Amino acid sequence: MSESTSPASRPLTLGVILYPGFELLDVFGPLEMFASVGRNLLLIHMIAERAGPVAAGTVADGPVGPRVVADFGFDDAPALDLLLIPGGIGTFTELANPKMIAFLRERARTAQITASVCTGSALLAKAGILDGRRATSNKQVFDLAVAQSAAVDWVAAARWVDDGAVVTSSGVSAGMDMALAIIARLFGQEAAEGIAIGTEYTWHRDADVDPFITHLNQLTPMLGALGRG
Amino acid sequence: MSESTSPASRPLTLGVILYPGFELLDVFGPLEMFASVGRNLLLIHMIAERAGPVAAGTVADGPVGPRVVADFGFDDAPALDLLLIPGGIGTFTELANPKMIAFLRERARTAQITASVCTGSALLAKAGILDGRRATSNKQVFDLAVAQSAAVDWVAAARWVDDGAVVTSSGVSAGMDMALAIIARLFGQEAAEGIAIGTEYTWHRDADVDPFITHLNQLTPMLGALGRG
Repeated sequence: MSESTSPASRPLTLGVILYPGFELLDVFGPLEMFASVGRNLLLIHMIAERAGPVAAGTVADGPVGPRVVADFGFDDAPALDLLLIPGGIGTFTELANPKMIAFLRERARTAQITASVCTGSALLAKAGILDGRRATSNKQVFDLAVAQSAAVDWVAAARWVDDGAVVTSSGVSAGMDMALAIIARLFGQEAAEGIAIGTEYTWHRDADVDPFITHLNQLTPMLGALGRG
Repeated sequence: MSESTSPASRPLTLGVILYPGFELLDVFGPLEMFASVGRNLLLIHMIAERAGPVAAGTVADGPVGPRVVADFGFDDAPALDLLLIPGGIGTFTELANPKMIAFLRERARTAQITASVCTGSALLAKAGILDGRRATSNKQVFDLAVAQSAAVDWVAAARWVDDGAVVTSSGVSAGMDMALAIIARLFGQEAAEGIAIGTEYTWHRDADVDPFITHLNQLTPMLGALGRG
């Protein structure tokens, strides 16, 4: 293991925040990587406003997809060292959910790292967590995030943006690249490289190279049509 | 849409087979892509031996990961046009589960496409579904699949292998590349390209180029230590 590895006296805890209409790969891409670290180093907790099954969603169909079990509600979620908030079509609803925004604001205060994938950064921005920080978001609906706060240094062309205590990734698949970078920081470069090989994942290692910047805001005009943007 | 698109009179159905200790990204990488097709064209059914929550797993920890809800059991699963069987640490247990093997054998007979990710091909091989066909599997434990049937033309260096009615992918992340190829076949190249852009996924388009072939069978000696290989 590299020098950046510090053996913890207890496993770190990662809280993954679910909501109806979350994007599947925003959650399970990073979770594949984080789960591969092993429970001796990292415990994963699935959390939603209320414990129980939560339906994933798609732009086409809304929250009718596969259901994932939240083990905790906002009221009984354990202490969290790391927070992961996904994006998805349900982001539009959650932007208007004061319980979601309050939970993120409260837990980000004490988390070592708060991370978002895709439009999850719109929720972090709405909660004020990104004010004064550099951050990115989903390419095709980038202005949804921008609209939540003018006090953020929004970086359009980035696979992910590491601002220390807050790390935000671009859309969907970018979450896997960000997760490996967070794993490298917390558990060492060798651990991250090993997980990439084990999952046969071609890790996009350069946070500043964004293959999808040419699609910036292509879908933003749709947001009005969705009636929630 | 391209010429390969044939408007269906009803949506196709995709059955995703879960079992304790399935690998998260084996399921949700492909599902991100398939769910993006839209329910007007493709309906997704989550299926396990018994309906209810099923725990994902990791090599390090076994089946203690996030829980996903199976909407159907083997006994009440609807008709399936497409089958997807993931790999994962639970493969070892399922190889010895006659109900799993019988379900796969029965449903593959009538499915238009039976697809596997990672060690899922070991289960297909055990069921005899790959006999006389070309197929691939997870790189690091490749010989686990090979050991299930000598009547398969095992292809070591492949991101995925398309043998028509049966499509098998290499480990974990390779399932996303295979899923996009299946989507291109069923719904047109334009649909697949649009989904890759929407998910900001750099699609590895060449089935014959395998970036992880250098790791072939690196973990196979561990299988004996697991007591189940």
